[in-house]
Amino acid sequence: MLAIGDELLSGRTKDRNIGYLAEMMTVAGIDLKEVRIVGDEPHLIADTLNTLRRQYDYVFTSGGIGPTHDDITADAVAAAFSLPIGEHPEAMSRLSAHYVARGLEFTEARRRMARTPEGASLIDNPVSVAPGFRVDNVFVMAGVPNVFQAMLGKVIESLPAGQAIESVAVACPYGEGDIGDPLRALSKLHPGVAIGSYPRFDGERFSTEIVIRSRDKAALDAAASAVSTMLADKASGAPAATPG
Amino acid sequence: MLAIGDELLSGRTKDRNIGYLAEMMTVAGIDLKEVRIVGDEPHLIADTLNTLRRQYDYVFTSGGIGPTHDDITADAVAAAFSLPIGEHPEAMSRLSAHYVARGLEFTEARRRMARTPEGASLIDNPVSVAPGFRVDNVFVMAGVPNVFQAMLGKVIESLPAGQAIESVAVACPYGEGDIGDPLRALSKLHPGVAIGSYPRFDGERFSTEIVIRSRDKAALDAAASAVSTMLADKASGAPAATPG
Repeated sequence: MLAIGDELLSGRTKDRNIGYLAEMMTVAGIDLKEVRIVGDEPHLIADTLNTLRRQYDYVFTSGGIGPTHDDITADAVAAAFSLPIGEHPEAMSRLSAHYVARGLEFTEARRRMARTPEGASLIDNPVSVAPGFRVDNVFVMAGVPNVFQAMLGKVIESLPAGQAIESVAVACPYGEGDIGDPLRALSKLHPGVAIGSYPRFDGERFSTEIVIRSRDKAALDAAASAVSTMLADKASGAPAATPG
Repeated sequence: MLAIGDELLSGRTKDRNIGYLAEMMTVAGIDLKEVRIVGDEPHLIADTLNTLRRQYDYVFTSGGIGPTHDDITADAVAAAFSLPIGEHPEAMSRLSAHYVARGLEFTEARRRMARTPEGASLIDNPVSVAPGFRVDNVFVMAGVPNVFQAMLGKVIESLPAGQAIESVAVACPYGEGDIGDPLRALSKLHPGVAIGSYPRFDGERFSTEIVIRSRDKAALDAAASAVSTMLADKASGAPAATPG
């Protein structure tokens, strides 16, 4: 994923699209491998896009497709693909109908939202009409979270579903320091699963959430059971919850 | 910035460090240029780190420095710099004192938190002792948000302050489509400032926050005044707030 916008890098806007996309990809069975955030710099956007689209099956972008001068994503995508950019007829007709119906002027700024690289297909925007677009394996979506979410829903419908990764979360009352050694041993015995441990700190004590992930249900169950056994052994043979 | 962790890419954990760092950098007068998020993959972490540390003045990382098997950031940083990794004496003494004082075993897992690339200097952790570390221009910090924040505070104290970017935000009741044209013209007349427009959508209507940023106070004030005049002109000559 590539999130675009100076406001994300200045801290003025806290991104809400990355976490949402991450969750949706997991549900769809698509591995999210990398996320980058860059500002409104045309060359950096184009270069980053070229790196990502060659490296991964899909690239999803957020931000920079509105009507103002700092909305430069469409131009950067066109530059990345060395494609000409122009007003997409279907996007023009949707936007024009939208503004005519509301008695609003179809300004030059608004027309900018119909600009796509040549040959792009549109991504429907059920929230506010102005569409996103797809070029090859790159999906260009809005940055406003509810518009991004609506567009992403349309995109995911259009993709072949992967095999979803299943996961089991085990709450662990011990800090990572207490379970690190047995958990490392256990993860070596279960190579078909990914075992993650995520520390929580409530201001006084650490606890841990242990998450086991796999596409192989049997391997997942075996590893989850081994983790539970390890924690039960620890509870019976060791002092209770300890800090750090 | 480089945020590290499978849990960020699966959506299980929503990152809270990127936005925080972005805000702190703005306050400190340091331009945040790019953020990447990668999973717990040693080669990808090392390669990404090498790209970023050569490209930018500083790199800040979050995550992967705890005591468990999936905490591989220290090893990845050592690999990136081609440095040997070992137990840092000062980190060992801090951690050992911490666990002894609490009557806890200084397990092998906990000793992992003292491992740093050779020559690293420590970043204090006032929250939970286990330190972060600095190698050259790379600052390696924890992923747990309150620990990350405490470490980042220490790091920023140690850096030469840049000239802070000042900003003025102007609330605009019009959608971007209504102000895109005049705003583009205005931004061309004020090249010394960055003018961003950030759409808001309340489910029914768009409005816009216009943010003007500059290190040059006089240029900032001139541009802010021009934006206000543009909006006042619009209010007197055009219909009030409109959707889209």
